[in-house]
Amino acid sequence: MTDRESPPRAKRRGREAMRQAIRQAMLDELVEHGYGDVSIEGVALRAGAAKTSVYRYWPTKEDLVIDALEHVLPSPEGHESAGRIREDFRAAARMMARSLAEQAGDVLMTLVGERRRHPAVAEAIMERLIRPRQRAMLELLRQAAARGEITAGSASAIPVLVGSGLLLQHFMHHGTAPDDEQIDEYIDQAVMPLLARPESSGPPA
Amino acid sequence: MTDRESPPRAKRRGREAMRQAIRQAMLDELVEHGYGDVSIEGVALRAGAAKTSVYRYWPTKEDLVIDALEHVLPSPEGHESAGRIREDFRAAARMMARSLAEQAGDVLMTLVGERRRHPAVAEAIMERLIRPRQRAMLELLRQAAARGEITAGSASAIPVLVGSGLLLQHFMHHGTAPDDEQIDEYIDQAVMPLLARPESSGPPA
Repeated sequence: MTDRESPPRAKRRGREAMRQAIRQAMLDELVEHGYGDVSIEGVALRAGAAKTSVYRYWPTKEDLVIDALEHVLPSPEGHESAGRIREDFRAAARMMARSLAEQAGDVLMTLVGERRRHPAVAEAIMERLIRPRQRAMLELLRQAAARGEITAGSASAIPVLVGSGLLLQHFMHHGTAPDDEQIDEYIDQAVMPLLARPESSGPPA
Repeated sequence: MTDRESPPRAKRRGREAMRQAIRQAMLDELVEHGYGDVSIEGVALRAGAAKTSVYRYWPTKEDLVIDALEHVLPSPEGHESAGRIREDFRAAARMMARSLAEQAGDVLMTLVGERRRHPAVAEAIMERLIRPRQRAMLELLRQAAARGEITAGSASAIPVLVGSGLLLQHFMHHGTAPDDEQIDEYIDQAVMPLLARPESSGPPA
């Protein structure tokens, strides 16, 4: 960007605020009307932005949906290990539950519900939003295996899928995310029993 | 019903065929348009039936959706135990996967996706379709505990939720139900490890 094109700081802040308003308008419209019935026109109107502003940053409706969801889901990179896998999973599950409860759950369910009619956006969500977060959880398991907390064989996709499956199913069944106590129950009763400690696979001491 | 009202056998068969055509039309319309946009008029038209015929059997749209789904999901009563819990769970999961793959999965996801806009039908599905099937699975676990295959403590809701959560999540992620091999993997790697054998909780022999 040249100096000439670079907007003053205040204006740049204004642009990011406008982009954020557009993202939020997309999520609100999506839950209200469903993906198929959301129009960029409606999103722009709700955000108080020009339609051309929307298209400048997001060439397609799908791009805007994915980007808006990316901004409300916990980052797949934020998972610094606490050094104990149970605490790592609790922290990650709580962050995800909070995000689902706020709005991401309704948005995801709305999109899942329209998968047959709009398969591309459902696939993009898997590829660009779900899989990176599953890989981040698997990486936490690998670190736990590397420091000798669990066996290498326990660092598989299954405990990750069990945890996320319970979270998703809870949201589907109840229309709300599990609270902290329920999350602990899922982790302690369903995820932790799937992780073997290295010593337990050895001969008795 | 008096003799006068009782229709001849042929006509009764015709009526059940008509009812079945209406149920199927509802499921097809639902996946095509979403719950909010399905009209009884559209369902009747698709089934080649009169609108009044629909209302005669199902006073509301919700009644028809629940009844139609009930007819395509595996019965919660059909679960005769094979005497081994792993085989019981495999059989139940395969039946459910087949039903999801055929059409029930798309229907359920469509309804889940509209939960915020139509909460009553989502709650009716939980109460009248999902919970009875979860109770049937729990009953299989209780029978396994009663015959000494697993501990009484293992006969809890958690293994049932893990199994159904993986099935649902698989459908959400892939848009298809898991195949038999994938089902076995889920059961052997995620469900069975949650079930304790009675002897393992006793003192070493």
